[in-house]
Amino acid sequence: MQYANYASPPPAHGYGAPMRHHSNASHMSHHSSRLGRPQSVAYGGGYQPGPPAAPAGVDPMLWGYFTSVDVDGSGSISVTELQRALVNGDWTQFDLDTVKMLMNIFDVDKSGTISYNEFAGLWKYIQDWQNVFRHFDADRSGSIEGRELADALRSFGYNLSPAIIGLVERKYASEPATGYGPPPGITFDRFVRACVVVKTLTESFQRVDTDRDGWVQLNYEQFMNIVLSAP
Amino acid sequence: MQYANYASPPPAHGYGAPMRHHSNASHMSHHSSRLGRPQSVAYGGGYQPGPPAAPAGVDPMLWGYFTSVDVDGSGSISVTELQRALVNGDWTQFDLDTVKMLMNIFDVDKSGTISYNEFAGLWKYIQDWQNVFRHFDADRSGSIEGRELADALRSFGYNLSPAIIGLVERKYASEPATGYGPPPGITFDRFVRACVVVKTLTESFQRVDTDRDGWVQLNYEQFMNIVLSAP
Ligand SMILES: [Ca+2]
Ligand SMILES: [Ca+2]
Ligand SMILES: [Ca+2]
Ligand SMILES: [Ca+2]
Repeated sequence: MQYANYASPPPAHGYGAPMRHHSNASHMSHHSSRLGRPQSVAYGGGYQPGPPAAPAGVDPMLWGYFTSVDVDGSGSISVTELQRALVNGDWTQFDLDTVKMLMNIFDVDKSGTISYNEFAGLWKYIQDWQNVFRHFDADRSGSIEGRELADALRSFGYNLSPAIIGLVERKYASEPATGYGPPPGITFDRFVRACVVVKTLTESFQRVDTDRDGWVQLNYEQFMNIVLSAP
Repeated sequence: MQYANYASPPPAHGYGAPMRHHSNASHMSHHSSRLGRPQSVAYGGGYQPGPPAAPAGVDPMLWGYFTSVDVDGSGSISVTELQRALVNGDWTQFDLDTVKMLMNIFDVDKSGTISYNEFAGLWKYIQDWQNVFRHFDADRSGSIEGRELADALRSFGYNLSPAIIGLVERKYASEPATGYGPPPGITFDRFVRACVVVKTLTESFQRVDTDRDGWVQLNYEQFMNIVLSAP
């Protein structure tokens, strides 16, 4: 059998250091200036400037992040607000395809926006992936390249040939390859997408490969369905 | 046999009206202000302000476009310059994945930049696709949705089920879908990418389906190779 076991790729716990807000992996930008004049609100033990008070039972720090991303104060995060908030370590925005993938996972009620409860899941997911990213960005370059990608995919349980790893590297590189030298590195958001795509494709393949011999028979409809269902 | 014949999707000729520079499909932006002070150069029949003179044998209009995209005047177009120049009808930039796809096709010498000769091919390709896009954007909304996408894919010779067309529509929509109503439309650059992906996947499938019965047998390596080779 040539492919990965059922070990999921991350988000996994225990990689690298605990998340710090400003890393070279990615940021949720906090444009507090966009929130308008800070109000004096009950917050923690006393009165101090800050975002609207967290509802009872809600993590005040997470609530603070949520309200700073919800720039127009509508009580939920729109796609545009999410796209503005999600940036890579080099301050480039996340690709639309990555944002759509995150919405597909975390907009559970398909409202087209991210509620506070949905945001809690999204935030944790990004934190977990940041830890993974930092762990495998061995040279601290802020991107994943070559050996780092191979190490990451192998540690997630995928047994991919060097040729396939090379395809992943070129497809998700943050710039086109040139004739000289190795492909450019993969920024945070594209690394997450690459890993989710490899996971989704591998699981789809395994679902069809019921006798686990590493071969599948597919008709055109099944083939297109599998490929176009991946992020 | 359930899939398309060998009819290529476009770029095809004869769709819709001849290309006009400002359409609702896409633009090459001309930031002539970035070119610095216009020089007086020999251009056509006499002296007039304009970009550097076109070399002998070169289409002066195409040369003008080329020099306006080559903002730093290096004589070739970098990826950054290309990304700045390529915008959709709604002025959103082309996705990185579309830009990389175009570089893969037109950066023939793999220099990482687009020379004038390479630009001629790229320019024609985009013009052809603009004609296709305008032809199928029946309601002139500036994006391709629902019925328009189905018409386009069918006219290119793909015999795709409604379920597969729906997957294409959601995957390449320019926004995430919500629970209400149909998916948002597909802007120009994502429409081109969607069509090239369907074409590439279909051709890869047909290459393996040597007896043309609509079924293929693939191992994991072959499967991943086909999928990750598509744009
Ligand atoms: Ca929601
Ligand atoms: Ca690195
Ligand atoms: Ca070149
Ligand atoms: Ca339309």
